[in-house]
Amino acid sequence: MPNRIIIDRIVIGNVQDDFHPGAFKAALAEFVSTLIFVFAGQGSTMAYNKLTSNAPISPAGLVAVALAHGFGLFVGVATSATISGGHCNPAVTFGAFIGGNLSLLRGILYWIAQLLGSTVACLLLKFTTHGMNVAVFALSPGVNVWNAFVFEIVMTFALVYTVYATAIDPKKGDVGILAPLAIGLVLGANILAGGAFEGAAANPAVAFGPALASWNWYNHWVYWAGPLVGGGIAGVVYELIFISHTHEPLPGGEY
Amino acid sequence: MPNRIIIDRIVIGNVQDDFHPGAFKAALAEFVSTLIFVFAGQGSTMAYNKLTSNAPISPAGLVAVALAHGFGLFVGVATSATISGGHCNPAVTFGAFIGGNLSLLRGILYWIAQLLGSTVACLLLKFTTHGMNVAVFALSPGVNVWNAFVFEIVMTFALVYTVYATAIDPKKGDVGILAPLAIGLVLGANILAGGAFEGAAANPAVAFGPALASWNWYNHWVYWAGPLVGGGIAGVVYELIFISHTHEPLPGGEY
Amino acid sequence: MPNRIIIDRIVIGNVQDDFHPGAFKAALAEFVSTLIFVFAGQGSTMAYNKLTSNAPISPAGLVAVALAHGFGLFVGVATSATISGGHCNPAVTFGAFIGGNLSLLRGILYWIAQLLGSTVACLLLKFTTHGMNVAVFALSPGVNVWNAFVFEIVMTFALVYTVYATAIDPKKGDVGILAPLAIGLVLGANILAGGAFEGAAANPAVAFGPALASWNWYNHWVYWAGPLVGGGIAGVVYELIFISHTHEPLPGGEY
Amino acid sequence: MPNRIIIDRIVIGNVQDDFHPGAFKAALAEFVSTLIFVFAGQGSTMAYNKLTSNAPISPAGLVAVALAHGFGLFVGVATSATISGGHCNPAVTFGAFIGGNLSLLRGILYWIAQLLGSTVACLLLKFTTHGMNVAVFALSPGVNVWNAFVFEIVMTFALVYTVYATAIDPKKGDVGILAPLAIGLVLGANILAGGAFEGAAANPAVAFGPALASWNWYNHWVYWAGPLVGGGIAGVVYELIFISHTHEPLPGGEY
Repeated sequence: MPNRIIIDRIVIGNVQDDFHPGAFKAALAEFVSTLIFVFAGQGSTMAYNKLTSNAPISPAGLVAVALAHGFGLFVGVATSATISGGHCNPAVTFGAFIGGNLSLLRGILYWIAQLLGSTVACLLLKFTTHGMNVAVFALSPGVNVWNAFVFEIVMTFALVYTVYATAIDPKKGDVGILAPLAIGLVLGANILAGGAFEGAAANPAVAFGPALASWNWYNHWVYWAGPLVGGGIAGVVYELIFISHTHEPLPGGEY
Repeated sequence: MPNRIIIDRIVIGNVQDDFHPGAFKAALAEFVSTLIFVFAGQGSTMAYNKLTSNAPISPAGLVAVALAHGFGLFVGVATSATISGGHCNPAVTFGAFIGGNLSLLRGILYWIAQLLGSTVACLLLKFTTHGMNVAVFALSPGVNVWNAFVFEIVMTFALVYTVYATAIDPKKGDVGILAPLAIGLVLGANILAGGAFEGAAANPAVAFGPALASWNWYNHWVYWAGPLVGGGIAGVVYELIFISHTHEPLPGGEY
Repeated sequence: MPNRIIIDRIVIGNVQDDFHPGAFKAALAEFVSTLIFVFAGQGSTMAYNKLTSNAPISPAGLVAVALAHGFGLFVGVATSATISGGHCNPAVTFGAFIGGNLSLLRGILYWIAQLLGSTVACLLLKFTTHGMNVAVFALSPGVNVWNAFVFEIVMTFALVYTVYATAIDPKKGDVGILAPLAIGLVLGANILAGGAFEGAAANPAVAFGPALASWNWYNHWVYWAGPLVGGGIAGVVYELIFISHTHEPLPGGEY
Repeated sequence: MPNRIIIDRIVIGNVQDDFHPGAFKAALAEFVSTLIFVFAGQGSTMAYNKLTSNAPISPAGLVAVALAHGFGLFVGVATSATISGGHCNPAVTFGAFIGGNLSLLRGILYWIAQLLGSTVACLLLKFTTHGMNVAVFALSPGVNVWNAFVFEIVMTFALVYTVYATAIDPKKGDVGILAPLAIGLVLGANILAGGAFEGAAANPAVAFGPALASWNWYNHWVYWAGPLVGGGIAGVVYELIFISHTHEPLPGGEY
């Protein structure tokens, strides 16, 4: 029986790795780091709502929300980088899987951990804010779902392309030292653009937790479909063009 | 007589280390770095009060205060990292102690230094601002002490977890280079959330200096209990799950 | 036939390098990274217009736009640094060429890629914002073209000087690790100055995409002439004074 | 004749070093990097005045000015670090001299270069802003010169202490990689505090250029005396307590 089952470049499972305690530690690291990231990011949106009594987002508010998400994701990635690969995002996990850098089973484990981390963060915010609404991602007036769908594709493409170029690429060199910061700040930069139009998740887990906590699933599919398409394209493009074909798919997330 | 007294994983004292001049230099480094951090952080709150004649915090003001604390803690940690381990926070010291990475005696030395550093910073601000009120940490309207208590727990958990993952963990690798920045910016991100609800100290020393300078201890216990619980949980969780059991407790703060 | 044709310090072409697949991969990396950078940067300007219904830029708006460009360029440089040298800017490419660190043919390839990347970013923004105007760079009231021309010269000099000092200089040492961040944030800092007077491009590609998408070329030459003069001066000054004369011109962009 | 003349720890001159071309290249690097830093920093203040028609500084404006100075100083230090030691500040040069890490003659050379760099930056801003006033550092209402004097002392102490701990200290380790960023951001953090009370220079060159360009020397001495006292104390304290006594004074600025 082969240890690793690979169809084309896709890794279905890796017997020695996926049932190793390391896989569960990695999933736990994803859970905690996603919780830390979403708590600060979603918390900053609720702080804006608290300070302004739910006014529409202003440029200063957008800066606050973008910095909270950018710094929070930087920290989320930095704290889990050496344990799980530092995803904190189902679209990053999907992009790593599509490029052959993560097995399917480990990917599912990460998704569960990320969605749980986001959900627990939102429940903690619900309690610590004395029951405020957890803000759901939604389209701004004048923006339709296809606009938002493509916005999510481009932003998540940028995010996962950054993950590949600065963290996964074996030829990354010294740039790898800055990888967690680049990954956090590409999200911060994109929120300063997309935040005014459709919330700018670029991360299905970030949208899932609030939707579950507030039980509001209106247009929720956009925040899954966009990031998965964008992250998938980034994974395929970067892997095929920039990573040498002699590169062996890695079984775990430790890139 | 044994040199090091250890009960379970807890290190009470370390004869050779705790009375070594290095321990006092480390405490002095904690004093200076905490002073630098609190001066900029608390100073930014007083600057906001000066510019707005004590208006309630606005989103732009929250950005200013979050950046001053985030950048200030980054610098505080960076300047003391190689000398004392870069705590600048009694909850970090407690988390390092609980995880067995610092002796009790050295921890007490650090606490005294941190509280003194914060107090001197507040007295300097009192003078340099021509006698303005040093702003005390307090709950916003609509937030009760249990909300604030849990807010402080989660934020300080995030902070101490970041300290463990990026600085204490012997397997941290290149992520360790960014440790001071990650530690500073996880605080900045959380202030953008918690600052609107309960001030967001995540650090008993940061709350102690202003309380002493203004002699206002209302709800002050929240800013001790929350951070110590959150920091303690982070220390235990990270140490037990992610740091190998073969790891020897380090006598000093030089992780 | 000589492999490399050099007139004085200027490299016209490099037969082995310019027709190597690596040159086209490098151009593709410039295309993608410039797209990511311009999408976030220009997107933040359009977000401000969306949130304020095209109000004149405010200090909070200037912070948002400066951070989006600064973080975006950091990411653009980080993602392409090891593949193409991380230019994302025709003026950087020109400065590298003038200093003898890039061949003319490769430079032309980079320019085409950068202009295409910016243009595609603007077309994507046009779609994702449901047809908003892509904001063109323009002079503020009370500023004439010569003011703007010199502003662009100084800002781009600063940018290309930073590229030389932190990335190209073979004696850069550890500073090279922070190069992408320094390059991004020198732009962010300068937008906080020049953004209020003439938009602050410091990059012909950043001005070209919006001008093409909105078909508005008024004063467009300023955003080419200024950056090329400033970038060229920086390349010549740094190369002649600070880089040792024993330094061999590098054929490609991998500095 | 001895090559190096040392009185106690103070180095007066270093014959082989001070008349070496490297000393003049180092001064030129200080000139350019200070110019880049002051152009962005002072430019951001003038941008605020332009956008608000000279309104008093607001919290959002303070964020803009703090980030421009913080990012600008980061870049100034990064671009000159390996050539001159990355001072961009007469108080840093003085602190390095007082601690025995720079000779008097080289220090004088640096001062001239820094003051010239700041002056040229202000003259360029005068032209590029179409003749706006170059904003002079001044005390806010309700703040007296002694408040400002101590404010400058504390802020510059923090700055020079950071330079010593992250850049000069031979035991700095990996923290040295982040030194330019820590030096830039400790200034940014302190401007968020002191900017509302007395402008927050922490750097005599930053105050000198505008005073010369606007020919306004009111209270100018505060911005020299405070930084020199604060920087001097930091140099003596750090050198005596934290740097080993076996450490040989370095002749040049290459720490």
